Amino acid sequence: MAKRTKIEGVTITPLQQIVDDRGAVLHMLRNDSEDFTGFGECYFSEIFTGAVKAWKLHEKQTQLLSVPVGKVRFVLYDDRAGSPSKGEAEIVELGRPDDYSRIRIPPGIWYGFTCISDTNALIVNCADLPFDQSERRSRPPKDPEIPYEW
Amino acid sequence: MAKRTKIEGVTITPLQQIVDDRGAVLHMLRNDSEDFTGFGECYFSEIFTGAVKAWKLHEKQTQLLSVPVGKVRFVLYDDRAGSPSKGEAEIVELGRPDDYSRIRIPPGIWYGFTCISDTNALIVNCADLPFDQSERRSRPPKDPEIPYEW
Repeated sequence: MAKRTKIEGVTITPLQQIVDDRGAVLHMLRNDSEDFTGFGECYFSEIFTGAVKAWKLHEKQTQLLSVPVGKVRFVLYDDRAGSPSKGEAEIVELGRPDDYSRIRIPPGIWYGFTCISDTNALIVNCADLPFDQSERRSRPPKDPEIPYEW
Repeated sequence: MAKRTKIEGVTITPLQQIVDDRGAVLHMLRNDSEDFTGFGECYFSEIFTGAVKAWKLHEKQTQLLSVPVGKVRFVLYDDRAGSPSKGEAEIVELGRPDDYSRIRIPPGIWYGFTCISDTNALIVNCADLPFDQSERRSRPPKDPEIPYEW
């Protein structure tokens, strides 16, 4: 079952890890998952220990992210006009084995992430639309409009 | 462009790696990719150095696999009645940076894999149908019917 967060439309869904002495099988997403709205593109973002990738926002694309390798802190900020959670920030840390979950980030949310494990991390994104530069916005990590210091 | 292999319907498509000093962005699959036929499920298979996961076959599901972490040797064997490549085996090694590609494995092909890097590997599968135990077959790694020794 998906868990709600402080930000409207952002949910966290715990995922199954099937442990095996040759290496685990890790669930990510099915076409009947409650937060699946269509398949546009799957891609990966590697992130080195201590590195920061921020801030990003998609005007149309919904992100479904999981972290099969390493540990990642995601920071999200709701700046959507008319959102009941406008002005809220949320911090979500994902990684195995204790926090192996899928996070849903709807359009209009500013987000960024940093690798908090000693080893590099890998994020997998199954987005509902293929990448389109024209609907993507970005801000520098130290943007004064977003109340979080990396 | 997808490259054909000795086995009918098995293709290899080189994928883009966008290098970045914080960690690369790695392409996997879009809904307009030439080998995309539908989204059923995305899941990951971790494989430890030297471990073998074999043999598997899906009667209906098509697998689209890439290896964003570590290096993996895939071995495929065509035992399909009526296939022009029946009896052929194919070995494909995938891993970054030189062999970062997507392999398409259609239904009816026996396949298995082993991790050939010093570090554990991660395989990502975007399959066109969700997992269904009833269409999945398996054989032990040392099956005498398949001409490959792990």
